[in-house]
Amino acid sequence: MRIAIDAMGGDHAPALIVKGALEAAREWPDIQLLLVGDTPRIEEHIEGTMPSNVKIIHASDVIGPDEEPVKAVRRKKDSSMVVAGRLVREGQAEAMLSAGNTGALMTTGLLVVGRIEGIERPALVYMLPTIDDVGVLALDLGANMDAKPEHLLQYAIMGSIYRTKVQGLKNPRVGLLNVGTEAMKGNELSKAAYSLLEAAPIHFIGNVESRDVLAHNCDVLVCDGFAGNIMLKTMEGTAGMLFSTLKETLTSSFVNKIAASILRSSMQKLRKKMDYKEHGGAPLLGVNGLVIKCHGSSDIKAVKNGVRQAKIAIESQLIPSIAAEISGK
Amino acid sequence: MRIAIDAMGGDHAPALIVKGALEAAREWPDIQLLLVGDTPRIEEHIEGTMPSNVKIIHASDVIGPDEEPVKAVRRKKDSSMVVAGRLVREGQAEAMLSAGNTGALMTTGLLVVGRIEGIERPALVYMLPTIDDVGVLALDLGANMDAKPEHLLQYAIMGSIYRTKVQGLKNPRVGLLNVGTEAMKGNELSKAAYSLLEAAPIHFIGNVESRDVLAHNCDVLVCDGFAGNIMLKTMEGTAGMLFSTLKETLTSSFVNKIAASILRSSMQKLRKKMDYKEHGGAPLLGVNGLVIKCHGSSDIKAVKNGVRQAKIAIESQLIPSIAAEISGK
Repeated sequence: MRIAIDAMGGDHAPALIVKGALEAAREWPDIQLLLVGDTPRIEEHIEGTMPSNVKIIHASDVIGPDEEPVKAVRRKKDSSMVVAGRLVREGQAEAMLSAGNTGALMTTGLLVVGRIEGIERPALVYMLPTIDDVGVLALDLGANMDAKPEHLLQYAIMGSIYRTKVQGLKNPRVGLLNVGTEAMKGNELSKAAYSLLEAAPIHFIGNVESRDVLAHNCDVLVCDGFAGNIMLKTMEGTAGMLFSTLKETLTSSFVNKIAASILRSSMQKLRKKMDYKEHGGAPLLGVNGLVIKCHGSSDIKAVKNGVRQAKIAIESQLIPSIAAEISGK
Repeated sequence: MRIAIDAMGGDHAPALIVKGALEAAREWPDIQLLLVGDTPRIEEHIEGTMPSNVKIIHASDVIGPDEEPVKAVRRKKDSSMVVAGRLVREGQAEAMLSAGNTGALMTTGLLVVGRIEGIERPALVYMLPTIDDVGVLALDLGANMDAKPEHLLQYAIMGSIYRTKVQGLKNPRVGLLNVGTEAMKGNELSKAAYSLLEAAPIHFIGNVESRDVLAHNCDVLVCDGFAGNIMLKTMEGTAGMLFSTLKETLTSSFVNKIAASILRSSMQKLRKKMDYKEHGGAPLLGVNGLVIKCHGSSDIKAVKNGVRQAKIAIESQLIPSIAAEISGK
């Protein structure tokens, strides 16, 4: 099993990406890790002997966090991200991980790695936190801005396969993100998608409202990339605002500070629960190989988690299963 | 100034609606309040002498909370909601308030009260809570599911007029809800709307992300009804989940309970801040008369707040200002 890691992407690249990769290599000796990036800069962060299952693949260029995705991917053919994508395309790696520019990674998935035959649009997938800590797999959260009903149908199928194959959930409940639970609610897109999902070989439970998602009312949440991204960022913004107001409250007086010190560890747990960055990397489903987006601020632990996620997905035959279901191959 | 109140709509109707109306009538003797509904059932809740500025308008029927909006409004011509709408249409009232079925009220606005000439789609407006307690006026939050770029332009103009005329804000900053702040971000709708907003006679500040809305990065937030409704319900769901998890934390051990008792009043303030129901009624802008949706669980205070809101909007010439700006009348 070979996994390519974009060593140059992310806020803490290459230092923590390299360190995370080395820890992963030591923990799982059956994985061959390909560290893609500037060789001297990667070598700087290798302490002691390099594990025999790590190999550096030199790439001279880097795509920056603010670069225009399509232009960057087209022009920077020797960037660490594009080279890692090419390794997947050419079958030299089964998966790639990057903590770099999200738009550029989606473009790399689409243009360099390429789609699975029959998939019209890849989808960006996150596990949203739920009150019971199980999580909801939501897709698409921003890869495709103008979805058609058929795209939502493919998201539902891919999401069901992911939860079944990678996460071992039997018969996952699929919900359609909508403004009400009744069948004929929503916009033209959601009404047309509803009919397609009803007829699909999945466990479709109907429309779900975003206010109920965190209560874990479904296992796979299907949405268009625009509304899904709005939902994701609203969760982040609301939780962020609440925590900062809470912090203000907890430090606003002497007695509140005492109360706060009692609650500190409970509060940290709560904050962690709401942080979707803690819930692993975000796969781009629908491309012909595993592409996982790690958060920009990924540290050693996050890189290791990403490698673990890729390992499980490869072992569970995720991509071949999606290909078989979609294109009948 | 005459304001019609649907006495039969809402969880606490007619009791608390009638009581709220009577309190409002006593506080503002210059308003004539028309209580619309079943006369005997309204009279039951009138204690003492009825203020001289309150009049009961009999309506024999009621639209229930779960009725299909368009059917209900078309069939129940003698329902309290439709009769109140007719009072506005016929110029016997300048405004109507209802805590009843939201969909039916939007339909009443559209079909009974009627649109302002030149307005293509009315928009449902809420004040979203912000960290600085000022609030963001957001529209449309669910009146129109399939918005066109021109609708978003009209929302921006109506929202700007509302904040200027009713809330006394000079040159309000208008933001477009989007998945990123760069100009060319988003879906086809938001890209086309961006160009229209740039050329409009408003203070357009560009795209805003939902995670920043609560930090009060704009004064008017323009969005399509589908994404806007998703955003609103995500805020509600995220805050609700956090508060319930917080409550669990605060009661999970003896020392936590002690800390919680210290924090009780601060926590209640925080909860109130996040509750958009506290921020007054939701006007349906674009109809030819003032239509205000009060929350279903409206109590005496909420009804009084709704009447105050209507009074200010009427005094500030909201509807004529919108009509003048849109149709050049």
